[in-house]
Amino acid sequence: MAPSRYVGYLTLFAGCLLPSGVLALWPVPTTLETGITALKVSPSFYFDVQVEGAPADLYEAVAQAQYYLENDKLGRLVVGRGVNDTTLLASAKTLSSLTLSLTSGANAKPIASEAVKPLGTRREEYALMIPADGSTATLTANSTLGLYRGLTTFNQLFYYYGGVTYTLLAPVAITDAPAYPFRGLGLDTSRNYYPVADILRTLDAMSWVKINTFHWHITDSQSFPLEVAQYPELAMNGAYSAEEVYTESDIQYIVQYAGSRGIDVLLEIDTPGHTAIIGTSYPDYVACFGATPWLQYTNEPPAGQLRFALPEVMNFTASLLVDIAKTLPSYYLSTGGDEVNTNCYANDYATQQQLNSTGMTLSDALDVFMQTTHGALMAEGKTPIVWEEMVLDWNITLSNETIVMVWISSENAVAVAERGFRIIQVPSDYFYLDCGAGESLGDYPSGNSWCDPFKSWSEAYTYDPLANLTEAQYELVLGGEQMLWSEQSGPENLDPIVWPRAASSAEIFWSSKQPTGAALNVTEALPRLQDMRYRMVQRGLDPIRLQPKWCALRQNECDLYA
Amino acid sequence: MAPSRYVGYLTLFAGCLLPSGVLALWPVPTTLETGITALKVSPSFYFDVQVEGAPADLYEAVAQAQYYLENDKLGRLVVGRGVNDTTLLASAKTLSSLTLSLTSGANAKPIASEAVKPLGTRREEYALMIPADGSTATLTANSTLGLYRGLTTFNQLFYYYGGVTYTLLAPVAITDAPAYPFRGLGLDTSRNYYPVADILRTLDAMSWVKINTFHWHITDSQSFPLEVAQYPELAMNGAYSAEEVYTESDIQYIVQYAGSRGIDVLLEIDTPGHTAIIGTSYPDYVACFGATPWLQYTNEPPAGQLRFALPEVMNFTASLLVDIAKTLPSYYLSTGGDEVNTNCYANDYATQQQLNSTGMTLSDALDVFMQTTHGALMAEGKTPIVWEEMVLDWNITLSNETIVMVWISSENAVAVAERGFRIIQVPSDYFYLDCGAGESLGDYPSGNSWCDPFKSWSEAYTYDPLANLTEAQYELVLGGEQMLWSEQSGPENLDPIVWPRAASSAEIFWSSKQPTGAALNVTEALPRLQDMRYRMVQRGLDPIRLQPKWCALRQNECDLYA
Repeated sequence: MAPSRYVGYLTLFAGCLLPSGVLALWPVPTTLETGITALKVSPSFYFDVQVEGAPADLYEAVAQAQYYLENDKLGRLVVGRGVNDTTLLASAKTLSSLTLSLTSGANAKPIASEAVKPLGTRREEYALMIPADGSTATLTANSTLGLYRGLTTFNQLFYYYGGVTYTLLAPVAITDAPAYPFRGLGLDTSRNYYPVADILRTLDAMSWVKINTFHWHITDSQSFPLEVAQYPELAMNGAYSAEEVYTESDIQYIVQYAGSRGIDVLLEIDTPGHTAIIGTSYPDYVACFGATPWLQYTNEPPAGQLRFALPEVMNFTASLLVDIAKTLPSYYLSTGGDEVNTNCYANDYATQQQLNSTGMTLSDALDVFMQTTHGALMAEGKTPIVWEEMVLDWNITLSNETIVMVWISSENAVAVAERGFRIIQVPSDYFYLDCGAGESLGDYPSGNSWCDPFKSWSEAYTYDPLANLTEAQYELVLGGEQMLWSEQSGPENLDPIVWPRAASSAEIFWSSKQPTGAALNVTEALPRLQDMRYRMVQRGLDPIRLQPKWCALRQNECDLYA
Repeated sequence: MAPSRYVGYLTLFAGCLLPSGVLALWPVPTTLETGITALKVSPSFYFDVQVEGAPADLYEAVAQAQYYLENDKLGRLVVGRGVNDTTLLASAKTLSSLTLSLTSGANAKPIASEAVKPLGTRREEYALMIPADGSTATLTANSTLGLYRGLTTFNQLFYYYGGVTYTLLAPVAITDAPAYPFRGLGLDTSRNYYPVADILRTLDAMSWVKINTFHWHITDSQSFPLEVAQYPELAMNGAYSAEEVYTESDIQYIVQYAGSRGIDVLLEIDTPGHTAIIGTSYPDYVACFGATPWLQYTNEPPAGQLRFALPEVMNFTASLLVDIAKTLPSYYLSTGGDEVNTNCYANDYATQQQLNSTGMTLSDALDVFMQTTHGALMAEGKTPIVWEEMVLDWNITLSNETIVMVWISSENAVAVAERGFRIIQVPSDYFYLDCGAGESLGDYPSGNSWCDPFKSWSEAYTYDPLANLTEAQYELVLGGEQMLWSEQSGPENLDPIVWPRAASSAEIFWSSKQPTGAALNVTEALPRLQDMRYRMVQRGLDPIRLQPKWCALRQNECDLYA
C-alpha cells in the first residue's frame, strides 16, 4: 500500500517556474503521495480489467471512466488554463493503461449488490498507483464497489490542454477509504416533481463525489408521485398528473442506475404527518383533510395527516410501507415521522372516538402505530429510519436498530445520541439546500426563508458531525447528507441549487480530515471544489458559480484577507 | 378605444360551476374588459398585417406570435388543467384572425428603430379587441412598437387543453400603455461570462413581460469581454478567454435582436472604478493595480482603478466611451461611477504628482474627468447615465440631462431627486437578484450576502418607485429595473435566478396599478405570475418555482392566512 506521507502540491512547485496547480480530488483521499513529473495519457489508453467473473456493471463503470477521461477536457484552473504546461508535456512519458484487480479472496459481485449491503459492511476502500515512467497504473480494492470509487478518483487526476490529457504530479499513490458509511443527498419530489432524467443526472453527479445514498423523500402532502402496485389509486389520485408519476419500472430503473454507481436508494414514505394527499384516495384515513385555516393544522398547506390511532389506518400504512420496501434492494426505509401536528387530531371525531374507546392518549396511539409499521418492516428485514421528533418530541418506543435523522438543529444530535440511537446528520442550519430562497407562502412579501440564510458551500463545510458528542457516542454517527426540499425548486433549478454545494458534506463524511491529518479547512478546499465544479460543467451539469472566474483562476486571491 | 370598466375574473365566475380561472396577463394592462364566453382559436388562425410598408421585423414579430400561439400549449392553472373546459368549448365559436393596423398618420418604421428612440418619445401603447362571436380581432397602435406590445399581450390570452387553444373570457377589450418609459433588466457579464445564446434567450423573456431596456454591465475589474475595434487589446488581454468575448458582430446581432423585440440596449462601461482589468493592457493608466491586501483598495478583488487625474487617461476613456457608443443605436450609455475607492489613489505616485502639479483635489480631478468623458459622449448625441455616488458622494458637475441610477438604498432616491436629476430605480434592497446567495469571498464561511436576504418576487413587487418623493418630483422617475450581479451567477443558473422574479419590476413600471385603479397587490398578482411562470416553462425557459405545484393549481390557497 502507498506510504501515508503527503506531499502538498504547493510545496512541490515552490521554487520552480510552474504556475501553482491544484490536484483536483474531491473528496480528498485518506493518503496521498504525488510527485512532480508530467505524464500524458495515451490516445490509446485502456482499462485492463483483471477481475475474474467481473460483473457487467463493472464494465459499464470502466466504459464511463473511459468516456470521462476522453471527454472531460478540463483545463487547469490557472491563468492560461495549461498553456504553460506544453513545454513540460513535450518530453513527458505516456500512460497507456490502468489495471483493475480485486485483492485475493474478494468476490466479484455487481457494484449494485455491494452498494446496498448493510451500512458498515460495504467495502469502498481502494488503492491507486500511477507510476511516473509510463508503466501501467494499478487500482486494487476489496470489492467492485471499491474499484468503482477508485475509478472516480482516477478520472479526477487529469487535466486537458491542446489535445493532451495529462497530470503534472506523477507518480501518484493513493489509499482511500470512507470515514463514515452513510454519505447522502436528500431530494423531495413531492412538492414539485422531477423527471426521471433529472434524477439520473443527479445520481451521476453524486457518484462523482462518492455520495453513496440517495435519500428520496418521494411523497408528501402535496403529491403522491409513487406508483405502488397494490395501491395504484394513490398515484392516480395523488400525482400532479399522469405524466408526473414514478412508475414501478421507473423506480426499478433508478434503483439499478444508482446501484451501479455505488448508490443505495433510501426511500422515505413520510408518515403519519405529511400525508394529506392520501386523503384524495382514502378520505376516511386522513384527519383535518384540507382543513382551513391551514396554519392551525399543519406547517404548510394542505392540512391532513393519517388517523394513526385507527387500526385500519395502522394496517393500511404497514401494508403500504412493506409493499414498497419489498420492491427495493435497500435494507433501509424511512418512515418519516416529522412535524406531526397534534391540533389536527384535537377535534377529529374518528381519532377522539378511538382514543376514548381504548383509553389511550394520542402519544400512546402513535407509539402503537410506529411499533406496528416498524414491526412490519423489520419482519421483512428492513431497518427503519425516522426523523428526530419521534425520539425527542414523542419518545416513541423504537427498536435499537432504528436510525434517526437529525434535522431541526445541529445541536439536537446530542439528545438523540444520549438515547443511544444511530444518527444521520441532516442539520438544517448547515445542510438544507433550500434555505435562503425567500418565503414560499403567498401574501407574505416580508417573509423570509424559515431557515435563512442560504447555506453556502463553505458554511456547510465547517460542520462538525461529532460536535458536542462524547467519544463513546462517535460511533453512533453513521454519516450525513445535504437535502433539497422542493417548495421553491424543480427541474428548472435542480443543478444550480444542489451543486457544487452538496459536495461539502460528501467530503466531510468521506474524508473527515485532510491527508496530512489536519482538519478540513475551507481555504485549502476552495481551489479543489472550484476544480470539481468546473469538471461538473465539462460533464454537462449546471452547478452554480462560487466566485467570479477571475477568482477561480487564481486560487485564494479572493480570500477575505488575501 | 375600449371602455375602462374592469370586470374581474373572479366576479365573472361567481355563481357558475366553472373552476376559477386566471387571466394570465403580465404586466396587467391599463384597462381590461372581459366577458364570459368561450372562444377557440382556429387551427388556420392567421395574423392579418394591414400596415402599409410594414417593416421586416414586424413580420418577424408576427411569425413569433404565431409560433407561441401554436406552441405555448399552456394548460390553465387549475386542478385538471382545463379538462372541465371541454364541454364549454364544444359549442364555442372560433377566432380566425387578428388584424394589425396603425392609427392613421403613424409611420411604419421598424420596431428596432422605435425601440431606441429617446425615453418619453417611444409609442408603446396599443388597443386590442377580441369579439366573442368569432369575427376578426383587432390590434391597433401608433407605432410598430405598440403593435409588438399588443402581440405580446395577445399571446398571453390563451390556454390549451386537448388540442384546443382557447379563452373562456371573450370578448376581451384592452387598452394599454406603460406607466414609465424605462423598464429594464440589468446583467453583469464581467464577473462571469454568458454566451450570446443566453443573452438572446434572456431578451426573449424580457420581451414577454414588456421590459424595454437591457442594461448591460458588460465590463468590470474581473474581465473585459467587449471587443472594441479601436482598442482590440482590451478584450485580448482582458477577456477570460478568446471564446469569452462579445465580438463587434455579436454586439450588433444582440442589439438588432433586442431592438426587434422592443428592447433598447444600454451598455455600461463602468469608470473610473471597476476597471482593474484595463491594467492588463494599460498598466500606466491604472492605480493600485493588483494591490494587496485588496480590501484596502477595493470592495472586491482585484484592486485597480483608472488614474482619472491624468490627462492621457481622461482622453483614453473619453475615446473609448465614444468609440463604443458610436457603434450603438441607443441614445444612452452608462459610464458607471460607483464605488470609487479613494484609498487606491492615496499613495499612487502618478495621481498624487498630477494633483500636486495642478493644485487640484481628487474630487476636482474626478469632476474634470467626468466632464471630459460626458462631454465627449454628449457631443456624439448620447445621454450619460451614472450610478448615484457621482451625485450623492462626489457632487460631480453633471449635465441636467444626466440620468442617475439609485442602487445603494431605495431611500436614496429622494436625495437624487432633490438635485433635480432624472432617476432610474435599481434599489438593491428590493431589486438586486443576486442577494441572498451567501458570501462569494474565499475563507469566510460565516459570511453572508452583503445584501441579504434574497429578494423574493413579492418583496420586489411591494416596491414603490415614488416613495418619499414629492408630487413635483414624480416626473423625475423614468422607471427602474432588477439587476443580476454575477459574482455567483453564470449561464448555469441564469434563468432560475432571474425569472420569474424580474417580472416584478416589469409590472411595477408598466402597469403601476391594477386596471381597477387599485394599487398593485401581491395577493392578486401571484396567480397571474404563476401563470406567466408556467408559460415561460412552456417556452423553454427555466424559471424558479415560486411554490409547490399544489399551490400553483389552487390560487391563494397557500397564502399565509388562507
